Amino acid sequence: MTTPSVKSKTAQLPEIFSHYRSDIDQALRLSLSSDGSAVYDMLRYNMGWVDTSGRPCEATEGKALRPTLCLFASEAAGGSVDQAVPAAVALEFIHNFSLIHDDIQDGDATRHHRPTVWAVWGVPKALVAGNILRVIADRSLTGLLERGVDPDRALAAGEALTEAYLKMIEGQYLDLDYEGRPDIGMYDYLDMISCKTGALITSSLKLGALIATRDQATIDAFVRCGESLGRVFQIRDDVLGVWGDEETTGKPVGADIRRKKNSFPVVYAMAAAGPGDEATLSRIYAQDRLHDNDVDTVLDIMDGLDTRGRADELTAEYSEMALTAMSQVKLEPDAGRRLRELVHFLRLRDH
Amino acid sequence: MTTPSVKSKTAQLPEIFSHYRSDIDQALRLSLSSDGSAVYDMLRYNMGWVDTSGRPCEATEGKALRPTLCLFASEAAGGSVDQAVPAAVALEFIHNFSLIHDDIQDGDATRHHRPTVWAVWGVPKALVAGNILRVIADRSLTGLLERGVDPDRALAAGEALTEAYLKMIEGQYLDLDYEGRPDIGMYDYLDMISCKTGALITSSLKLGALIATRDQATIDAFVRCGESLGRVFQIRDDVLGVWGDEETTGKPVGADIRRKKNSFPVVYAMAAAGPGDEATLSRIYAQDRLHDNDVDTVLDIMDGLDTRGRADELTAEYSEMALTAMSQVKLEPDAGRRLRELVHFLRLRDH
Repeated sequence: MTTPSVKSKTAQLPEIFSHYRSDIDQALRLSLSSDGSAVYDMLRYNMGWVDTSGRPCEATEGKALRPTLCLFASEAAGGSVDQAVPAAVALEFIHNFSLIHDDIQDGDATRHHRPTVWAVWGVPKALVAGNILRVIADRSLTGLLERGVDPDRALAAGEALTEAYLKMIEGQYLDLDYEGRPDIGMYDYLDMISCKTGALITSSLKLGALIATRDQATIDAFVRCGESLGRVFQIRDDVLGVWGDEETTGKPVGADIRRKKNSFPVVYAMAAAGPGDEATLSRIYAQDRLHDNDVDTVLDIMDGLDTRGRADELTAEYSEMALTAMSQVKLEPDAGRRLRELVHFLRLRDH
Repeated sequence: MTTPSVKSKTAQLPEIFSHYRSDIDQALRLSLSSDGSAVYDMLRYNMGWVDTSGRPCEATEGKALRPTLCLFASEAAGGSVDQAVPAAVALEFIHNFSLIHDDIQDGDATRHHRPTVWAVWGVPKALVAGNILRVIADRSLTGLLERGVDPDRALAAGEALTEAYLKMIEGQYLDLDYEGRPDIGMYDYLDMISCKTGALITSSLKLGALIATRDQATIDAFVRCGESLGRVFQIRDDVLGVWGDEETTGKPVGADIRRKKNSFPVVYAMAAAGPGDEATLSRIYAQDRLHDNDVDTVLDIMDGLDTRGRADELTAEYSEMALTAMSQVKLEPDAGRRLRELVHFLRLRDH
């Protein structure tokens, strides 16, 4: 392999994640505590809480980025953590719903070193389980009223979530539609990730903010911050999809090249390559399957174009934009620090 | 083939369907009129309005039972058709969303004599298209406020729809879970269809009623009527799945036997069979695939147990219950007649 994998020294999760973790965990687990049907075991398995037989296991949970952003925004904008919890739960479940369906779409049999839901229970049941999780997410929002959020705010939160969700799946559709198309440029890519990934990240901050405040300028600032954060997150994700450390990400180096994903490195390389490299890339990507030496060739071309360097520059720019968006807003104490640490982490994370 | 197919003389759609048809059609088409993305062509294709290239075609639309029930309930309970239209649209799209996903789950490549969405565009895009239709359904409900429905009624409609939708997919999960299980009895079956099919049909009447009136006794009556109608509809559907006329239903006689569906005829036959027939059925259903002579054997056993006669008795009983539920409620003129014609049709329909 020509390219060493990404091993960052900043892999430690910043404090913002642990600050909201117990609120999030408790609410998520309560929402899936029903014993009514075996489908809940599938959902708890997907969350990393139980094994395939439904027995509690060593948790392999995700970072819970979206609910963390939501609770952070609510607190930072002067509201309560407690009132935003139902929105945080909804966001995490919608994210997980999309992972279950994504794994079906992509035929991915493992995620975070565990078999995916469809790989354990088959496609039909996984499809239904994903749909059920999506409804549980919707239902969670009714908890806003119970926690004293004004009805018009609760309604606005519901609408924002629905819009974000629609944008997210339209982005997933674009991602599928772009597959194998050589005409996809950097703007198409950036638009696509704004939908596929950015919409839910943006709405995480937006929901937290609009539950906490009626000040539209503050809400708008969180939205702009989220739009930039979404790009930081996805571009870094794409870098990890090509150069991530197998032990940390669960994917071998070059994984997303082999899968011909429309990710940042290949879109950038196609755009930046001279005629010779462009012809090589086109020839390789025109094949049905990529072999090991094809992947190595693509990696060499990407290295020659300093693709990782360009990705790092871009994520640094978007990180700056995310922080600038918030600079006009008066935040609660600690919020500024938490946000800076978070942005730094998202830009340099290795998992 | 030992058993003649069902050819009913009552196949004509009763007047209730034409009465609301243009309101429904117009609103459905408007909701999918966006040109934004190619995914809308997939959705319009699924509705039967365009061909696979997006060109308008001879419409092969469904009956639009659920929106018809919704508009009927609203008008019958003294409300307006216009105000209930957004709910009617939501119900039809949720129904169609579930058809798109069902066809993926069941691997069905044709429906109503046309290739299914996944058969044309592949499973990943079909999955996403279904999810998009589900959001479009949700968004339709925001139209209730625009049409002057009180916010608390609009909220109640949203909650009722979410509950119905959750029940529907839990029913789909049960249906999958029951597949190939010999221990599924008549009560399990009736519970399962109450969820899988009954929930959306019931909520169609419920939504219409609660948009039109605040009288809880009236809303409850529509709910009870819907619960019985749902059973009439599904038991008749199951009869058509075994004995339906191929030309009308698009499926050969015995289709659901060959597919080992947990439908009324086989659940009833298993329950009613003596030891000999039961052993034969168990042996046949324990096979991975059923052959033509297996299907014929099962049909013979079902005939011997007068399975169709029992199904007809049951649908007659539930039809009676549906009408009785409404007998205490003061309906608008024509509503009683429309409901009786509809119940009669659902009980005896051949498609």
